[in-house]
Amino acid sequence: MVERLVVIGADAAGMSAASQAKRLRGDGLEVVAFERGVDTSYSACGIPYWVGGLVDSDDDLIARTPEEHRKRGIDLRMRHEVTDLDLAERTVTARDLDTGRDSRVGFDQLMIGTGAVPVRPPIEGLEGTGVYGVQTLADGRRLLDRLNAGSPRPKRVVVVGAGYIGVEMAEAMIRWGLDVTVVDGGAAPMSTLDPDMGQLISKAMVGLGIDLHSGSRVQDIERDGRGDVRTVHTDAGDFDADLVVLGVGVRPNTDLAAAAGLELGDRGGLRPDPRMRVPGADGVWAAGDCVESRHRITGGWAYVPLGTHANKQGRVAGTNIGVAHTGKPEAMFPGVIGTAITGVCDLEISRTGLSSAEAEASAFEFDTVTVESTTRAGYFPGAAELTVKIVVERPTGRLLGTQIVGREDAGKRVDAAAVAIWHEMTVTEVAGLDLGYAPPYAPVWDPLLIAARKAAEARTA
Amino acid sequence: MVERLVVIGADAAGMSAASQAKRLRGDGLEVVAFERGVDTSYSACGIPYWVGGLVDSDDDLIARTPEEHRKRGIDLRMRHEVTDLDLAERTVTARDLDTGRDSRVGFDQLMIGTGAVPVRPPIEGLEGTGVYGVQTLADGRRLLDRLNAGSPRPKRVVVVGAGYIGVEMAEAMIRWGLDVTVVDGGAAPMSTLDPDMGQLISKAMVGLGIDLHSGSRVQDIERDGRGDVRTVHTDAGDFDADLVVLGVGVRPNTDLAAAAGLELGDRGGLRPDPRMRVPGADGVWAAGDCVESRHRITGGWAYVPLGTHANKQGRVAGTNIGVAHTGKPEAMFPGVIGTAITGVCDLEISRTGLSSAEAEASAFEFDTVTVESTTRAGYFPGAAELTVKIVVERPTGRLLGTQIVGREDAGKRVDAAAVAIWHEMTVTEVAGLDLGYAPPYAPVWDPLLIAARKAAEARTA
Repeated sequence: MVERLVVIGADAAGMSAASQAKRLRGDGLEVVAFERGVDTSYSACGIPYWVGGLVDSDDDLIARTPEEHRKRGIDLRMRHEVTDLDLAERTVTARDLDTGRDSRVGFDQLMIGTGAVPVRPPIEGLEGTGVYGVQTLADGRRLLDRLNAGSPRPKRVVVVGAGYIGVEMAEAMIRWGLDVTVVDGGAAPMSTLDPDMGQLISKAMVGLGIDLHSGSRVQDIERDGRGDVRTVHTDAGDFDADLVVLGVGVRPNTDLAAAAGLELGDRGGLRPDPRMRVPGADGVWAAGDCVESRHRITGGWAYVPLGTHANKQGRVAGTNIGVAHTGKPEAMFPGVIGTAITGVCDLEISRTGLSSAEAEASAFEFDTVTVESTTRAGYFPGAAELTVKIVVERPTGRLLGTQIVGREDAGKRVDAAAVAIWHEMTVTEVAGLDLGYAPPYAPVWDPLLIAARKAAEARTA
Repeated sequence: MVERLVVIGADAAGMSAASQAKRLRGDGLEVVAFERGVDTSYSACGIPYWVGGLVDSDDDLIARTPEEHRKRGIDLRMRHEVTDLDLAERTVTARDLDTGRDSRVGFDQLMIGTGAVPVRPPIEGLEGTGVYGVQTLADGRRLLDRLNAGSPRPKRVVVVGAGYIGVEMAEAMIRWGLDVTVVDGGAAPMSTLDPDMGQLISKAMVGLGIDLHSGSRVQDIERDGRGDVRTVHTDAGDFDADLVVLGVGVRPNTDLAAAAGLELGDRGGLRPDPRMRVPGADGVWAAGDCVESRHRITGGWAYVPLGTHANKQGRVAGTNIGVAHTGKPEAMFPGVIGTAITGVCDLEISRTGLSSAEAEASAFEFDTVTVESTTRAGYFPGAAELTVKIVVERPTGRLLGTQIVGREDAGKRVDAAAVAIWHEMTVTEVAGLDLGYAPPYAPVWDPLLIAARKAAEARTA
């Protein structure tokens, strides 16, 4: 029996699922994928670097083109927006955005990979020209067009938000030689880190020449008679601007799913089970930026829109669609612990598990320990500063979270902490881990081990 | 009651124990430490970098001087060699190497931190001038004296052995502008890695201009009439040399312990329990390069002389000496899994768990997977090659070992694998880990996750 898999959204999650299912079932599975945009399978996380000129071309960000997908036997329909999902009839209706024509396609299996849409804060003057998101390649192209060909050339930009995208875009705009103002509501940039760690990022941003205003909100955007952006009014002052970049995050793109009667979580995402099946809807799968994920530490749901999860989840869904009726083992997505990494200039910033605010929100009793150490033995040339902060559950001594800010390969050191948190290790256990040591690569006591040891000692003092 | 702790050997293990015990017990513990050399608490791992000129001075390698230890209340006796240990009488006899006088000191607790001595292969002509080990600061000073003031200046060096020290010393000699020949018995440099990974190191060494002869043995060292080194005869040919550097590893320095009747392991090391107590000898502790350690994966004993273990083990011993009779929790050393890291030029080399040879020696059935990936997203500027090889237990899918060779912050990525191996994760579980992703720091599928995923897929194919 040939089944038909319909995929809504042809980016990381959707096409990972499509490719994997097709690979496993071959001619036994017909795959029809709808994509409302003009690109497939691209690295959205790479957009700030492309806009900033570090990556030459949007082609570099595309992992697989529509043609490559089609060669693998996927019936991919670009510029087709799915406007209706009928779970009872098991059909989708898709509109060809070029011709305006609708078509209706039935499915046996349905993969929802609709991704995310940028949060649009309720700011007067936000709608109109001169305000740019950076969520899709098309967004990036629009912004680059403005930067390249704007007349007059833009000189001043206000970036709204200092999360990952806001910080990365602020640096990209500095690379364009613009005067950059960042307005952010948090106590410090990167509210996924504790504010004291955020201060280190703040310093680096100011060092780059960014005019940073934390704890501030945009009131409205004033436009001139031609409708162009003129001034951004904030409670930290008024900032003249030629353009505005939004770095205020994204939310799950799940209107279609909701309209079809699928249940959404608190953050607006679908909540598939570990096999990526949407509960209560037979043969319906979801993955990527349109879903919430199980957080292994809080036990609750979290919204972590990241390419790495989208790829893994999509592959899990595709595997399970692929192995149906074969008796082969199913795949599971084991959940997330909130590992993330970024940078400003040569400062690397990473975190995993729970921040203090997150630990508090989940009613953990906890202590924190912060240590300043170095990436290499202190005496070794090139040893760079590195600050590690850990969050430790008080009753048990369990490591709940780790934040790292430092230069020169500091960032990926968070991975060892991530695996430790994954296994609910106590700080005493972490302090005994066998991590790599040689003078050019770490002090004899690895910074993570020092932090864990200090936390363990404080508990028995 | 005031107890007396006698420490034999005042380097990392001994003085970590002494400092920690003294800190915890203050005036309740008298500490007498004997050191036959002229230095305390130094980074032996840093010696090749100091000799190579990357580290300015031996002072940089000394974590704590004798004076600093004395200020902390430790009765430290330098240039005192303990010549006899009487466990029945609970005394040590120490000879003052300057005056030749012996003294006898009783102990309640005894800490053995006698470290390691270089392996001296049975090669004719090895004894005499011109042959250098690099195990102590004094060794380093001798070699530097020869390099700086030798007359005539040395031009050609043969390095015997291509383990960690051999490889590091070969590069150090290149930095001195010498012609460097390395003669090593293994199939490829770094026999703690698989030979195919060792080939990558071999390439880097040859790229540095090193004349590398793997699978070769030194037959004898020919000296001239004055007794100076002239030619090193090997089964790969004869190499003229002005000096010879030994990088053939170390063995536990345990003659004293053995003479006292303490039992040694197969590798010649003491085998303390996880509290670092020497079995069958009340109040006797041992740590550092003179002990073997429990290997968590094989369950057997391993000899891993590394500063990081010496520091941890010494601190565990010191804590347990310190908390005696207080009811405070004891400390435990949890064992090792063989994590190690080094580099050649800008190539970083790391490993953890079992190599193929080690897995075979422990009678594991296993498969290996090797992947070539990059340190950053492939499209990101500066993305560097990185090769990951994993060893996977066949019946269970458990990750047994990981080897990484690559440029630019490749090395410390082994730590995530180390924590995964520590927890006996299967490759399926590893493939689901939440590791840090952003284009400047990792591909969307982290190299370790790709290797684990491929291994997992091969198991279900």
